[in-house]
Amino acid sequence: MERVIRHLLPLPTMDRLRDIGEKKMVSTIASMLHTSARLGPGDDAAVLEMGDRYLVISTDMLWQGTHFHPSMSWWQKGWMAAAVNFSDVAAMGAQPLGLLLAMGLPADLHIKNVQDIVQGAADCCDRLGTDYLGGDTKECSELVLTGTGLGNVPRDGLLTRSGARPGDILVMTGSAGLASAGLLALDRGLNAEKAIRALFEPIPRIKEGTLLSSSGMVTSCMDTSDGLSTSLHELADASGVGFEVDYDSIPVDPETRWVAEECGTELDSVILHGGGDYQLLFTVRPEGWDEVQKLLGTEATIIGRCLEGNVNTLMRGTSYCILEPGGYEHFRR
Amino acid sequence: MERVIRHLLPLPTMDRLRDIGEKKMVSTIASMLHTSARLGPGDDAAVLEMGDRYLVISTDMLWQGTHFHPSMSWWQKGWMAAAVNFSDVAAMGAQPLGLLLAMGLPADLHIKNVQDIVQGAADCCDRLGTDYLGGDTKECSELVLTGTGLGNVPRDGLLTRSGARPGDILVMTGSAGLASAGLLALDRGLNAEKAIRALFEPIPRIKEGTLLSSSGMVTSCMDTSDGLSTSLHELADASGVGFEVDYDSIPVDPETRWVAEECGTELDSVILHGGGDYQLLFTVRPEGWDEVQKLLGTEATIIGRCLEGNVNTLMRGTSYCILEPGGYEHFRR
Repeated sequence: MERVIRHLLPLPTMDRLRDIGEKKMVSTIASMLHTSARLGPGDDAAVLEMGDRYLVISTDMLWQGTHFHPSMSWWQKGWMAAAVNFSDVAAMGAQPLGLLLAMGLPADLHIKNVQDIVQGAADCCDRLGTDYLGGDTKECSELVLTGTGLGNVPRDGLLTRSGARPGDILVMTGSAGLASAGLLALDRGLNAEKAIRALFEPIPRIKEGTLLSSSGMVTSCMDTSDGLSTSLHELADASGVGFEVDYDSIPVDPETRWVAEECGTELDSVILHGGGDYQLLFTVRPEGWDEVQKLLGTEATIIGRCLEGNVNTLMRGTSYCILEPGGYEHFRR
Repeated sequence: MERVIRHLLPLPTMDRLRDIGEKKMVSTIASMLHTSARLGPGDDAAVLEMGDRYLVISTDMLWQGTHFHPSMSWWQKGWMAAAVNFSDVAAMGAQPLGLLLAMGLPADLHIKNVQDIVQGAADCCDRLGTDYLGGDTKECSELVLTGTGLGNVPRDGLLTRSGARPGDILVMTGSAGLASAGLLALDRGLNAEKAIRALFEPIPRIKEGTLLSSSGMVTSCMDTSDGLSTSLHELADASGVGFEVDYDSIPVDPETRWVAEECGTELDSVILHGGGDYQLLFTVRPEGWDEVQKLLGTEATIIGRCLEGNVNTLMRGTSYCILEPGGYEHFRR
């Protein structure tokens, strides 16, 4: 079987990534691959059949230049490299099986800094009840950390992006905008400890993901790492539906409100478009909400519903507007 | 259970990586991790129990600055990123299950170049009968490719580095020094197509690895990517034995001899210390050689034997000398 289709799309071949942006690049790559895997390019992680369960594998690369804030400690960089991968594992409803970490390290780095990175990643694994299995170290001009997160999930418990149906309830864990508020607080020197910790030490929602998986009531799921509005669009696109989001029901931490006010920043921009939160955004069958609420308690909040069509709308009081994705796109200038 | 031991070794904390080198760094990291996995830091890949088989996971990072020769095509860079990982999978005796590829890409790269990288990795997967499952793309100042190779192997067929015993036969696939001759040929503008292809398009020894696994006669195995002498030392160290290598029996391609001669380079340095070959180096129970030879045919050559002790010796005719590792070590200046 010829697995790879050469040059399926007649794309202009000399476009630079800075011109076409990440989304078009990713769709170009995905169109070249067609695989026998249960899920491949396009979802949060690859999925392979393994006995009576699915094996879930996520890989995510973090680079000094765009992913590590100057205020971040080495320990936090290691934690982050583990956390971003386990967040993808959580979004599939899987239990973590382990982490591999490939580190690209500048030669003038101190061994103590490397130990701190390793400790941060190991502590994140420990927190989630899983193991740091090993990895690779290579010399690089700037710090690059590529984690691989492994997980497993019963076959009937796999959560994907593509199962939302009209009538489903739209739900998220935690709150929106807290990590983004942390970034604002750092820029302005505000003492917003909770927000800065949310930004630098996100806790992957493994517990919540596995509970959602076990409920049998969740029809689609992903994390909010690219911001709420972007995640909403990706979930809607993958499922072929539209969402109606009730702005006033989106959970917001008091510290997020305070930081936005202190910085003179529009709160709705922070809430809707701020990235880095690593919460779960998911849809629930209408009859399943009681069960989900029983499992997740106050961690889960209904923020809207799922409709026919392909338009996402934001409801504020009695007015409606189209909700456009507003998150960050890599490469594009 | 506390999985991570903090600061087990009282290392000087302000040493830079350029001073201490890769080996000491890796042993420092490995000492911090103790995991429940079957094999973790130190072997070619991590190993997890998965039903009645072992899941094998390898991750390897390649960086523009040290891993990609200026003459390499984009397609070859993609092939290489897949091949280095599947070579580790092969060294464990495993069948490949799939590849994930995280790409760090400069913003001024053309999409056509990215397509070529993806095609190279996909073609390597295709060649090995496995799938390119997906991955990640991020912006980076220089090209960084981190692959994750997955494989699986029956529990009683796992090949590791640590099982060689005195009396075992030392064997390798293919020949030694061909990739290194390719590098010399490029530097001197020699037309050495086979050697340059060996350097840029290594073919992971998956078929041979799985045959060795099925034989039940192989006691230890690793690949020769860091050069024969370095690999010999690592295999000996992991197994707690010494090797006696017969120099004249090491298989050498005629093109390797020709290139060394043309370049005025010592052939033994190319054969013993040249990296990039991705052959398998392994030990076989004395009674198992017939079986291994039947399975691998002329691909397998006996190059020595396994002795008590921890010294590796090189026999040339009737003279002996100590064989020191002479491969490249990352970071060290």
